Order: sequence, then structure tokens, then C-alpha cells
Amino acid sequence: MKADPACVFCKIVSGSLEAAIVFEDETSLAFLDIRPLFHGHTLLIPREHVETLTDLPPSLINPFFSNLQVICRGVETAMEGEGTFVAMNNRVSQSVPHLHVHVVPRRRKDGLKGFFWPRTKYRDDEQLQDVRARVRSAISKLRK
Amino acid sequence: MKADPACVFCKIVSGSLEAAIVFEDETSLAFLDIRPLFHGHTLLIPREHVETLTDLPPSLINPFFSNLQVICRGVETAMEGEGTFVAMNNRVSQSVPHLHVHVVPRRRKDGLKGFFWPRTKYRDDEQLQDVRARVRSAISKLRK
Repeated sequence: MKADPACVFCKIVSGSLEAAIVFEDETSLAFLDIRPLFHGHTLLIPREHVETLTDLPPSLINPFFSNLQVICRGVETAMEGEGTFVAMNNRVSQSVPHLHVHVVPRRRKDGLKGFFWPRTKYRDDEQLQDVRARVRSAISKLRK
Repeated sequence: MKADPACVFCKIVSGSLEAAIVFEDETSLAFLDIRPLFHGHTLLIPREHVETLTDLPPSLINPFFSNLQVICRGVETAMEGEGTFVAMNNRVSQSVPHLHVHVVPRRRKDGLKGFFWPRTKYRDDEQLQDVRARVRSAISKLRK
């Protein structure tokens, strides 16, 4: 499997860098964005180092996007959202050059007008771990 | 195949409403957004009426997201982009309740900071048809 030793997300895949992982299987990994648009903002990545959506190999499309459906349901349920915003930046505005899909829980009139709006933080690690557990649990239930 | 007679995108699928179609196959349809973020801004939809990403049936995931890769490549090539912004709004901020993926060509420093930024227009139908032809042609070439 392709990996880039300099890539932050490959480091999360290999376990050498910690992340608030909420989902993992043979092909994919999902974790909380540490600078969320809203709490519960999750990133889904393929384990393999591919740079953009168009680089995702055909064999990974079905597992990856099936997982995306599960992540969407899980994030929305866990955060009591009314919907989700799902987005990928390919190259331009892409902070880490390893494909990642943002899954952001939405509520009506939540003030989100765009993708680069001011972001919030987690108050502390406890709050982050709490949100993590809720999302992880909701996803886990959906996979059964 | 499920269709909603009141749905604008189902009308585009059935042909009763016109659109600047740039791609079509058995399962999907892609056309220019008439209020683009940038020229070449394309919407990919499944022919079947499904409301959100999580409603897309398993059998459509592979064809739909394989097509999305082609659309991304085509839009970027046609518009001489340096990347793409790919996004879905599920329920909240979703103007038409029929799953649609926005594919927006990007250039560095193009000013796009978010999804609901002021949009541009096509000057006239000629300009729109010109852009349409370029995108359509680039996609068509990639599918060969």
C-alpha cells in the first residue's frame, strides 16, 4: 500500500501520530478535524496515500463512498444534526495532500455560509473525547 | 426508477426541462449550474430521485462516484483549473432535494472562500454554450 512518510495523514494511518479516530476498516479511516467548523466535523480518508479524488483507485470507490454514507449518518445522528455538508478540496485549498472528505453536521440557521468560515475549537481534550465517543458509537451501531 | 414529478432535477432527467447537459449515462446526468461559482461549475446527479447522499442505493455508489472522478477531471481540464472544489449539501442548504454534487473548478487565489459566495453569471447563452461544449468535449475524450 502506498504511503508517504512526510504525510500527516499517513502518520495517522500508521499510528505514529495520534488522532481522534471515529471509524476504521481495511481501506479507510475517519477522525475528528481538530479545527472543526462545528463539533463533530469529521475527516474520512483512504488508508492508501492518494492525493485527490481522481487518484482514488477504482477498487476503492465502492468501499470508500459506502463508508462515507455511514460517516454522514453517524455524524448527523451523534451531533443531532438536521443535515450534513460534505466537501473535498482537490489541490487548491487542500491543506493536506492526502484525499480527505469533510463531513460537517449542519443545523438550519447555524450560520455556516461557506467552507472557510471562522472555525471553533474544542474547549479541552475531555470535550473532544466526549464528542469522539458519541460519533464513534453512533457509527459503530450503524455498521451492525 | 423512482422519480418525483415536482422535482426540478427529475424534470431535467425526463427531458421536460432543459439544462446544459455535459455528461450522461444510464445512471447519472451532469449539467452546468446556471448560477455558477465559476464558469464550468457542474452538478452531477443520479437519474433516480434520491434526496441525499445517504439515500443513494448501494448499486449506484460505484457508477456514481466513478462518474464523479470523470466529471472532476473533465471540468478541471476544460476550464484550465488547478484543482476542484467538490461538495454536497444534505438537507440543510440543499436548494433542490435531489442529490447533486457540485464540481467547481478552482485556481489558486481565485477568491473562493466559501460555498455561498457571490456567484457570477454567464454573459449570454452563447458563452454558456461555449463553456458547455468545452466541458462536454473534455469529458467525452476522457471516457474513451
